[in-house]
Amino acid sequence: MVIDLKRKHSYNPQPIRQRVAVTFDYDVLFTTGLFELDNPMLADVVAADGEPGTKRAIAVFDSGLLPHYQDLVEQITAYTNHYDDVLTLVTEPLVVPGGEAAKNDPQLLAQIHQVINDVGLCRHSYVLAIGGGAVLDMVGYAAATAHRGVRLIRIPTTVLAQNDSGVGVKNGINAFGKKNFLGSFAPPYAVLNDFAWLETLDDRDWRSGIAEAVKVALIKDADFFEFIVSHAEKLARRDMETMQQSIYRCAQLHLEHIASSGDAFEKGSSRPLDFGHWAAHRLEHLTNYRLRHGEAVAIGIALDSTYSYLAGLLSVNQWQQILNTLRALGFDLFVPELAEQLASPLSSRCLLAGLTEFREHLGGELTLMLLEGVGRGLEVHEVDVSLYWRAIEMLR
Amino acid sequence: MVIDLKRKHSYNPQPIRQRVAVTFDYDVLFTTGLFELDNPMLADVVAADGEPGTKRAIAVFDSGLLPHYQDLVEQITAYTNHYDDVLTLVTEPLVVPGGEAAKNDPQLLAQIHQVINDVGLCRHSYVLAIGGGAVLDMVGYAAATAHRGVRLIRIPTTVLAQNDSGVGVKNGINAFGKKNFLGSFAPPYAVLNDFAWLETLDDRDWRSGIAEAVKVALIKDADFFEFIVSHAEKLARRDMETMQQSIYRCAQLHLEHIASSGDAFEKGSSRPLDFGHWAAHRLEHLTNYRLRHGEAVAIGIALDSTYSYLAGLLSVNQWQQILNTLRALGFDLFVPELAEQLASPLSSRCLLAGLTEFREHLGGELTLMLLEGVGRGLEVHEVDVSLYWRAIEMLR
Repeated sequence: MVIDLKRKHSYNPQPIRQRVAVTFDYDVLFTTGLFELDNPMLADVVAADGEPGTKRAIAVFDSGLLPHYQDLVEQITAYTNHYDDVLTLVTEPLVVPGGEAAKNDPQLLAQIHQVINDVGLCRHSYVLAIGGGAVLDMVGYAAATAHRGVRLIRIPTTVLAQNDSGVGVKNGINAFGKKNFLGSFAPPYAVLNDFAWLETLDDRDWRSGIAEAVKVALIKDADFFEFIVSHAEKLARRDMETMQQSIYRCAQLHLEHIASSGDAFEKGSSRPLDFGHWAAHRLEHLTNYRLRHGEAVAIGIALDSTYSYLAGLLSVNQWQQILNTLRALGFDLFVPELAEQLASPLSSRCLLAGLTEFREHLGGELTLMLLEGVGRGLEVHEVDVSLYWRAIEMLR
Repeated sequence: MVIDLKRKHSYNPQPIRQRVAVTFDYDVLFTTGLFELDNPMLADVVAADGEPGTKRAIAVFDSGLLPHYQDLVEQITAYTNHYDDVLTLVTEPLVVPGGEAAKNDPQLLAQIHQVINDVGLCRHSYVLAIGGGAVLDMVGYAAATAHRGVRLIRIPTTVLAQNDSGVGVKNGINAFGKKNFLGSFAPPYAVLNDFAWLETLDDRDWRSGIAEAVKVALIKDADFFEFIVSHAEKLARRDMETMQQSIYRCAQLHLEHIASSGDAFEKGSSRPLDFGHWAAHRLEHLTNYRLRHGEAVAIGIALDSTYSYLAGLLSVNQWQQILNTLRALGFDLFVPELAEQLASPLSSRCLLAGLTEFREHLGGELTLMLLEGVGRGLEVHEVDVSLYWRAIEMLR
């Protein structure tokens, strides 16, 4: 950059080049039965801050847990009472709606800010967020912005939140009909993955999260994809240990990427972990969230894999293995909304408008992830729309 | 941390220790006449992003500028038209109230989010924020949270914003009657300090910002304090070049601290740059913002310097030189609100409640900065309230 000004004053100070380096450390821990009294994990995580005295906390949980865990409030309360030398709940646990509803109602964000203010949490206090990815995103945004950041402990309760959304550095809510329009980058204080929550998931939620494992395997780790291929049937019939292994490896791959990408806060235009996601986000919107996120991601993966095949990047065998594996896991790979544009070319409900929205959210040049092999992502900056139409026809 | 769980399942994966390092680079540049057509600084800063095409921007400015710069909208528009190969304003510049009002009305935040959505800014677009510290804080919070961060170029127009609040990594608004209750850590894309804005400041705003220069000199740089002492009279009678030198050095010291503290995002309990600020924030509140921030900081500095003297940390000469310099700059060092508690000991309007509020906002242990010499701050974790009462009496 050349700065050559006609100086109007005699005092012309040099530019100051500021560089601020910030390091965030957090542990992602795995357990079963987090709130059982003989499980010290949560208390240990809080005690490890090394600060004197009992720490103050609030807990916010996902209403979706209530039918299966009627005594959750009592359990959390009993737990914190048991470890009251470390941690105290300063108010009753709050319950917020689960799923996308958590991110669509700005009053929920305001409510959590209100509670943080009312009970006088400080930056060294704790917010425990217990639920699926949407609840973690909304509560995380509230915690990140109160006092510019109260410590957030994420306790993800779904496959998707344990293996992907709950382990990363982002939060957010929806606004103006756009997913995650408001949010921030704010790493959590810790993530505690309790496998016991998975027992009571319905089949759709169990399956849904596996799409993110398929995604990260396809772009980064052929061995992990091989594992999913050979264990697809076990995953589909809810084998718990296979699921735990899959969650662990998926979380690990996501965390490795965030730590090593050099762009954890996404200042550039590249976001490889969003393979299959441009179409997924659009389909969630077009179906009014009838599709769950992972179900939409499975279709997005199928679409971008088919496109990669049509573009000559994947062999027919690789492509078919991907589609067959998704089907073996139980995913439907077509919904009518995929093809609305084909039926009515002037419709505003065009799937491909998702490309524009995706670029706008991330900024800069359009950057999409395709596959040039199993375990090998490839970034492209242009797409051939006619190939996408063919890909949609093939999925139909 | 020892984790010794009674494992319920055979699969016991190891904890994942996540470390995310993020580096933020931004330039703080100095000029005179930023929006003059022959001044390429702003265009150069945008062009330096190296991305192709004309970048989209919105501009938000402080209504306090309007009486002095009636043609500001036309000037900004003419500037961006002139450099339209680099930068285009996608909507008319917005005007928002200046001063604390900008941070007290959540509708202003919502309005800026709405505009960012309406015009379809992306993360690589620009928000130009032009105004005093309060406007920069509010607009910065809006920019940081839309799409999890649109690029923010701060154009500070007051002494305080140019030498302190506008060059740092924070933003925020007030909520629940608490200053900066909501906000985030989000470094700007660039800071462009235009000295020309200072010409039209009223005397209070001119003077007010000097308090931050005194503050940072006292805790970090005895030579700079000596400069302020010997130039106090020139600063008070509005010598522009002296002010420019003072702003530059003050900004430099703040930036050096942020870059080198190892805790730019304030995860710990120490905040040395807030010397004198616990009382200042409280006095702003107790006076219903009749005091400007810098005026309150001058009183806070006087109070904590007096306390440091009474605690045996400062010599009588050092203490008197500090108070005399503040007075020579034109600051009043006493307001009745300082002593309300003395007159009515059970009043809820106690100055010292500010200590609790300060600790709550930052979190953890109470950590206050005192002086153990000119240019040498000293952190303490306990205070003797009776010494503060004596200090208040002495200032009276």
